[in-house]
Amino acid sequence: MQTPNFEHFLGLEELTKGEILNLFSLAKKFKLSNKKHSLLNGKTVVNLFCEPSTRTRTSFEIAAKRLSADVVNLNPDASSFLKGESLKDTINNLCAMQVAAIVVRHKVSGIPYLISRYAKAAIINAGDGAHEHPTQGLLDTFTLYERFGDLKSLNVTIVGDIAFSRTARSNIWALKKLGANVTVCGPKTLIPSGIEKMGVKVTYNIKDAIKNADVLNVLRIQLERQEQKFFPSLNEYATYFGVTQNLLDKHGKEKILIMHPGPINRNIELSDEVADSPNSVILEQVTNGVFIRMAVLVSSVCAK
Amino acid sequence: MQTPNFEHFLGLEELTKGEILNLFSLAKKFKLSNKKHSLLNGKTVVNLFCEPSTRTRTSFEIAAKRLSADVVNLNPDASSFLKGESLKDTINNLCAMQVAAIVVRHKVSGIPYLISRYAKAAIINAGDGAHEHPTQGLLDTFTLYERFGDLKSLNVTIVGDIAFSRTARSNIWALKKLGANVTVCGPKTLIPSGIEKMGVKVTYNIKDAIKNADVLNVLRIQLERQEQKFFPSLNEYATYFGVTQNLLDKHGKEKILIMHPGPINRNIELSDEVADSPNSVILEQVTNGVFIRMAVLVSSVCAK
Amino acid sequence: MQTPNFEHFLGLEELTKGEILNLFSLAKKFKLSNKKHSLLNGKTVVNLFCEPSTRTRTSFEIAAKRLSADVVNLNPDASSFLKGESLKDTINNLCAMQVAAIVVRHKVSGIPYLISRYAKAAIINAGDGAHEHPTQGLLDTFTLYERFGDLKSLNVTIVGDIAFSRTARSNIWALKKLGANVTVCGPKTLIPSGIEKMGVKVTYNIKDAIKNADVLNVLRIQLERQEQKFFPSLNEYATYFGVTQNLLDKHGKEKILIMHPGPINRNIELSDEVADSPNSVILEQVTNGVFIRMAVLVSSVCAK
Repeated sequence: MQTPNFEHFLGLEELTKGEILNLFSLAKKFKLSNKKHSLLNGKTVVNLFCEPSTRTRTSFEIAAKRLSADVVNLNPDASSFLKGESLKDTINNLCAMQVAAIVVRHKVSGIPYLISRYAKAAIINAGDGAHEHPTQGLLDTFTLYERFGDLKSLNVTIVGDIAFSRTARSNIWALKKLGANVTVCGPKTLIPSGIEKMGVKVTYNIKDAIKNADVLNVLRIQLERQEQKFFPSLNEYATYFGVTQNLLDKHGKEKILIMHPGPINRNIELSDEVADSPNSVILEQVTNGVFIRMAVLVSSVCAK
Repeated sequence: MQTPNFEHFLGLEELTKGEILNLFSLAKKFKLSNKKHSLLNGKTVVNLFCEPSTRTRTSFEIAAKRLSADVVNLNPDASSFLKGESLKDTINNLCAMQVAAIVVRHKVSGIPYLISRYAKAAIINAGDGAHEHPTQGLLDTFTLYERFGDLKSLNVTIVGDIAFSRTARSNIWALKKLGANVTVCGPKTLIPSGIEKMGVKVTYNIKDAIKNADVLNVLRIQLERQEQKFFPSLNEYATYFGVTQNLLDKHGKEKILIMHPGPINRNIELSDEVADSPNSVILEQVTNGVFIRMAVLVSSVCAK
Repeated sequence: MQTPNFEHFLGLEELTKGEILNLFSLAKKFKLSNKKHSLLNGKTVVNLFCEPSTRTRTSFEIAAKRLSADVVNLNPDASSFLKGESLKDTINNLCAMQVAAIVVRHKVSGIPYLISRYAKAAIINAGDGAHEHPTQGLLDTFTLYERFGDLKSLNVTIVGDIAFSRTARSNIWALKKLGANVTVCGPKTLIPSGIEKMGVKVTYNIKDAIKNADVLNVLRIQLERQEQKFFPSLNEYATYFGVTQNLLDKHGKEKILIMHPGPINRNIELSDEVADSPNSVILEQVTNGVFIRMAVLVSSVCAK
């Protein structure tokens, strides 16, 4: 295996299948060794989360610390860092402090790309608007890779709010590159027009979506991201698109694998029974998240 | 000495005298060596404080870092961790990230017990509602143990808001197990009925409370915890239950030891003169807090 | 070189030229080695920022971590540390937890001095009111020292809000001790009367200020510090005191060095063109900030 080597880590769209598989090998190595490494000793990793997200931030923080990096958490909403200062100045200042990597979450799509043009530190995208959430896409696909090995012809259905979901987009990029068949399913208002160009099938009927699926990746309904209502009520969403055991028993394969990027709106997009069933790998995804982020950090920081 | 070994660390009620003394020995060892240890190197400790408390959180953070643990601070009030997610999912997610211990503060009594039923990480109670604050109880009792050795027949009086005080309850458990005589004193509205069943004497008169006391543990008036007023005014509380040097000179033993769990409402429950007198061990309590928490962390994490 | 040795680090007023140069040597040593040191291994450094300031806090945090210290960040505005507790009790509590240094930022001038009278930990002033910001003064002067060597007879002009600027005062102390000629320039309302006693020249005309300057240190307009308006509008300030390339071309020396303590209000006190020009050392100041703070931390903590 060749250790992957990225100047920045911005999205899965621009990764090759080989790079993805190399990241998986590295993550697997970290998972098997399951100890603290000194690979980033003496390096500083900044978590710059311009949107609240304790979950992803915590996963990155733990990943960086398990590599012996020094971690600085910045949450510009709660601080003066950006007061009267452009984001560019903030980034340039952090780079002047000789940090090795800046993990960026921002509500505006494309911000990590913009930053990467001038940043001397490695920029790692921890989610930008509705665009990409590449480490989430990787950890989801890695979880399938561990389970199935070759993903060729695996039927993966992504259910929910596809339009506002960076997780969906990053999953689609990774899954398609690894040869999986991807279907997306949700209310018409939450399926972006032209999504078929990404190589996915579209259905608006949850039963059809489940029918041939080997894997169901159920997305979080992100009410906070919807400036207007895209469906009449949560209740109606749950009725038409909520994944229940009854629905799976009637229409799904016996061993259909259940994924969710979290946090779960329980009994809305996913019933308790399904979320906690033996077919659910939701917590395995969380575990893998740390190892995937360790792989991404090492590949980006050590490249510098 | 046998190193104590806890699956979780939830309360002093369920500890034996032997376990308490073993924790004291371990804390003493850390205090005497007074250096950084590598015992928790490679382990992650999460401080999950669902109520604001910088003091206890800082003490746990310093304790964990002196053991070389990686520390992640989470304050769910200020974050999105719990948005649309149950506490159970939060805990299960942290455990899936393979953290070794979760130090929990929560305003609801019993939450750490509930969590411990499913958590794979060690759950350490940093204060739950009005129920227990076991590390505070231990550090207070350890401070007396260092001073007096055997606590048998030592007269300890706890003054103040007994009803809403988890500190009082944890102190009573530890003191009774070590053989001390415990008296509680406060306004009738702040002494829970049936407290005598814990083996303590009750008085509503501060002079009586002081008379035979070797130790006066003066509690903080926790206005923030009182949904209704339990005494007419702070002024009246200070008049009837505030501990002043004059009161001690008139009614107390010469060497009466003064304790307070902090933060002090100065000149309400305790006069400046008493708080800062040579008989006060208030800052020694704070010093011991770090060593006690090191002992608790080691005993809980290394058991896993 | 003798390693400097401070009980506390409160201001540049009380430092000798020799002590300043020793700190520069130490900072330079850290800059040249550019790696993580173990000098503060096992020591705890607390960042107690009672005013929001992510920039300086981050610089101190990175500096302390590059020395292998354990760092605890406290922001009392966002926490309960000070609730019902005096600042003195807070400090005494932190010292009782055996922290090695407390880096203090406070809006009230003199607070770090007050604290240092009773604190057992080293108190490091990270900015107190409009009084001193000694590490900023040092890093600015160090940046000049690296560039020019001997500062004797170097003409340094500080432009802007002199009255409310602790950065100005700390710069003046350091520059005068090292033999530089210092001029201050700003609107009359923002130049404190009697400033000449510090050995500086005063001008209210930006063209005069620029004419003979080798260095222009342009301060941030700190609107948040002005309880009343000291100039009619930001626009008017920019017109009369904003530093533009046109102004420099007309009135300044060719190689005039541009400094700014950040964060920049772009196109108010400084035009984009000037801030990002080859003569600007603004990001070099930020880089040097970390090394200066490492030197200050080592000199203060290791003295204990």
